[in-house]
Amino acid sequence: MNFLEERILKDGIVEAGNVLKVDSFLNHQMDVKLLDRIGEEFYERFSGTPITKILTIETSGVAIAYAAARCFGVPMVFAKKSKSINIEGDVYTTEVESFTHKKKNTVIVSKKFLNPGDNILIIDDFLANGCALQGLISITEMAGANVAGIGIAIEKGFQHGGTMIRNFGYRLESIAIVDGMDVESKTVYFRKQ
Amino acid sequence: MNFLEERILKDGIVEAGNVLKVDSFLNHQMDVKLLDRIGEEFYERFSGTPITKILTIETSGVAIAYAAARCFGVPMVFAKKSKSINIEGDVYTTEVESFTHKKKNTVIVSKKFLNPGDNILIIDDFLANGCALQGLISITEMAGANVAGIGIAIEKGFQHGGTMIRNFGYRLESIAIVDGMDVESKTVYFRKQ
Repeated sequence: MNFLEERILKDGIVEAGNVLKVDSFLNHQMDVKLLDRIGEEFYERFSGTPITKILTIETSGVAIAYAAARCFGVPMVFAKKSKSINIEGDVYTTEVESFTHKKKNTVIVSKKFLNPGDNILIIDDFLANGCALQGLISITEMAGANVAGIGIAIEKGFQHGGTMIRNFGYRLESIAIVDGMDVESKTVYFRKQ
Repeated sequence: MNFLEERILKDGIVEAGNVLKVDSFLNHQMDVKLLDRIGEEFYERFSGTPITKILTIETSGVAIAYAAARCFGVPMVFAKKSKSINIEGDVYTTEVESFTHKKKNTVIVSKKFLNPGDNILIIDDFLANGCALQGLISITEMAGANVAGIGIAIEKGFQHGGTMIRNFGYRLESIAIVDGMDVESKTVYFRKQ
């Protein structure tokens, strides 16, 4: 069991409806040492892969993207979410629809920050159905940049985002993959990696 | 002239309407070394002040709050913004009205992450009219915690947020205070500190 799986078992809260709350250490209150360790883990897993930039999406991806960018010594960019389609300036935009809420969000990145020849490592804290990630991949490719890899802290393996993205041929590394949860016993089942 | 003022002169873009764009290094694309340096600067300025937690607000505050939290060796918490007043769970909320857009945002922090006895250092990237900051101060005091200090990367000194917050007696440290900008000559005037 790795450091993140251990932390999820210790401080994660399992709730009805396949909800896993990690807001005491990952996405509301943040444990800085854990974020640093997550950044290092991505650096180890993608060592040997040339990375020129880290891309994430607001909000909770920002801190671990920064942690990773520190290790790789490259800039990071965070995509902005907007409900509006009135976006000013020279930007890449793509619309992603949430499977669960059926609402549409526009994902936006300034054109000047993604360039052909960039090797992009996409980072996010959670992967479930992968809607946000699809938007980030789409924008990276719109810019003529290369998706060099995708690093996720916690993947919900029982939802389809991870499988779909791997099926498309992307290199996706998730530090913890949750294959199931049991509310009664408060148990989390991790995929063996 | 300090490191941040130098960087603003080098890469900041002055636009009509007192707009200072720093999106190439601070709030869209992020220069990791600069963020680290900002974190260290806050650590130096508030050395001797006991700090138990860093508080910021999504989104662009998150990275520099993390940088600061690494230096202080304490957890960080980011407040969430919401347009909805249907907030679930045990949370502190306060409504802040933007002077410029006249729209209201609800600022939310889970009660379990702010406690009486906490010495909170509030961190944000920008301070103009200070609406978001007023919400963070209000929530900290609602929790019975102490506002030990406020650290801002860039303060727009020609708007009223900074003066108002200092008038209230809070210790506010801004790394760069912009007292004026000139669009024609692309000049930024900094307050001598």
